Amino acid sequence: MRRGFAVGEYRTRLRAAQADMAQAGLGAILLTTEPEIRYFTGFLTRFWESPSRPWFLVLPAAGDPVAVIPSIGAALMARSWVRDIRTWAAPDPDDDGVSLLADTLREIGGPVGVPSGPESHLRMPLAEFERVKRASGLAFRDDAGIVADLRAVKSEAEIAKIAHICGIAGRAFDRVTEIAQPGVPLSAVFRDFHRLLLEKGADWVPYIAGGAGPLGYADVISPADDTPLAAGDILMLDTGAVWDGYFCDYDRNFAIGRVTAEQTAAHAQLIEATAAGEEAARTGATARDVWQAMARITGSDETSGRLGHGLGMQLTEGLSLTAKDHTILKPGMVITLEPGVELAPGRLMVHEENIVIREGRAQRLSRFATAPLPVI
Amino acid sequence: MRRGFAVGEYRTRLRAAQADMAQAGLGAILLTTEPEIRYFTGFLTRFWESPSRPWFLVLPAAGDPVAVIPSIGAALMARSWVRDIRTWAAPDPDDDGVSLLADTLREIGGPVGVPSGPESHLRMPLAEFERVKRASGLAFRDDAGIVADLRAVKSEAEIAKIAHICGIAGRAFDRVTEIAQPGVPLSAVFRDFHRLLLEKGADWVPYIAGGAGPLGYADVISPADDTPLAAGDILMLDTGAVWDGYFCDYDRNFAIGRVTAEQTAAHAQLIEATAAGEEAARTGATARDVWQAMARITGSDETSGRLGHGLGMQLTEGLSLTAKDHTILKPGMVITLEPGVELAPGRLMVHEENIVIREGRAQRLSRFATAPLPVI
Repeated sequence: MRRGFAVGEYRTRLRAAQADMAQAGLGAILLTTEPEIRYFTGFLTRFWESPSRPWFLVLPAAGDPVAVIPSIGAALMARSWVRDIRTWAAPDPDDDGVSLLADTLREIGGPVGVPSGPESHLRMPLAEFERVKRASGLAFRDDAGIVADLRAVKSEAEIAKIAHICGIAGRAFDRVTEIAQPGVPLSAVFRDFHRLLLEKGADWVPYIAGGAGPLGYADVISPADDTPLAAGDILMLDTGAVWDGYFCDYDRNFAIGRVTAEQTAAHAQLIEATAAGEEAARTGATARDVWQAMARITGSDETSGRLGHGLGMQLTEGLSLTAKDHTILKPGMVITLEPGVELAPGRLMVHEENIVIREGRAQRLSRFATAPLPVI
Repeated sequence: MRRGFAVGEYRTRLRAAQADMAQAGLGAILLTTEPEIRYFTGFLTRFWESPSRPWFLVLPAAGDPVAVIPSIGAALMARSWVRDIRTWAAPDPDDDGVSLLADTLREIGGPVGVPSGPESHLRMPLAEFERVKRASGLAFRDDAGIVADLRAVKSEAEIAKIAHICGIAGRAFDRVTEIAQPGVPLSAVFRDFHRLLLEKGADWVPYIAGGAGPLGYADVISPADDTPLAAGDILMLDTGAVWDGYFCDYDRNFAIGRVTAEQTAAHAQLIEATAAGEEAARTGATARDVWQAMARITGSDETSGRLGHGLGMQLTEGLSLTAKDHTILKPGMVITLEPGVELAPGRLMVHEENIVIREGRAQRLSRFATAPLPVI
């Protein structure tokens, strides 16, 4: 599987953005976050873990993007298709890219669209943003959702990367039987599962979650503690692993030592709900339709939280499978199906798979689990 | 080593913030990012990887903090010392916590300080922030650097966690000889080093960087490619590994197969510069003083980039060792010493260690490398 994308793919993304910018009357779009900048450039580094320096990409209404970045990133950005790379020696307490960015924006012209809708944030200090606005003298407004809407529909090359990491995670899940037995602390299971994901080919593993208990788990976001697995527990492992900057996000449940009728029934219900979601997830249906198909089976209501979400360059991105999300599904959207049931007050079981919306039926990206709960 | 902190530590942090808030005339501080919220609550989860939901913590001028968070986080936040936890079913496209946060802020009273200085960002959509400001009717301004200044000086319990992860990384570095030989692709070395860090006890590894080449490496932020190591290369591995939410950040250089006089001399110079930095890093000295002590030896000038930085809950945080940073060192500040030299135009060697500022000499947190370059 080839890393990166052909330059043509970045040009296609840019042209699509520029067509929307013309409609929205924007002279430029200013991007500051990792996925947004990577989407248009391919700039991939774990260096974003350091909050010390702001990074900027400016999409002009016509012509190629301009990167305004700390000089430490110049060599890596020069390997991308971006040719206009302007750098400063960051961090600079006197002027941390403010004048360079303001000059660039003035040269390109406004109004400047900044992603401001759901899930967006501005990755630069608020005080510096005010300085850039003043120094540029341009009008700033929302990007009209242009970047988020483009990212929601994946290209075949993007889908192939997500399928690839789904396959890697699948081969790691296949080996959970080797690392999870009664008596093994949950923290050790997480650590070994992380190692398995790397062995099978994940580049890195930003997200591992899970839980264990006879009636499921208390939540799905806590780090593992050292409580040993016990016979009769349900163990759930969920992962957002990454290959070449693209995520999978799905989970598996395992019964430890033995399985009860109640656990078996709950798992079968989750599998049934997932199948109903898959069936409903067709071009032209809404996120709400898919939610409803699953909620009917699990008995979830509007307060139960979402039953899936978009997926791609981030662990979660774009639509939510909830009663309130009326986003219309389009071919190329990658989503998770993530139904949950409560086995006891405050004790959950969840299941998750990854699919891509196609004309007609959705296509599976993860190898779907079957109803029988695997017993370790 | 115990995970988490005693409640008293969180109370101390809060009281210190409140003393500064009184000075700055703030009625509340609004926090939205992972390290800021964790600093005052202990709320630790990898779920921040999902950008879909905003999270809020409000520090009042008097009394205990109020968490305004998505209901998916309620169970985990309830395990912290925070008692006032207000939740909504996020993501909600109609009102994603805006009214709940605005009501809470109105109840607590303004002016509301929001971290806006260097390295800060607001982790919520800009459009939603404007709605919160309007709905609360309160005045919003900078937090006067209160949160960043508090976080810069670590408690003994925090320092112990950083020392612990430095030790874990040290034991992983000791085994690099087993994974790096001529012919092994750099990407495989990164993957195996990641696995070693987990084996030695890291909870997760948000950052691995490095490079290889006979005259050093082109940059220190690129992901590894599949180029095999060759005899005569210098291999550098750098890691930000995490234990209980605290980072180490240091590196090691290795000569592959053989070592040249030039490589030996460069490494010795880096070790000498690190020692000079350690010597200069005393209470009352400035970040610039430490920079200067190292820059004198490496010949770095003001355009060479920083030669170290603060470290703690983030891979990099707080001060920068540059000519322009006049921050005064205080006992409890944890910093990296990171000198670099150029072996050829565009080819670097860097070295990095971690220390904590004390009364008198700094204390080493990483086990310092010695001048001879290890040959694998």
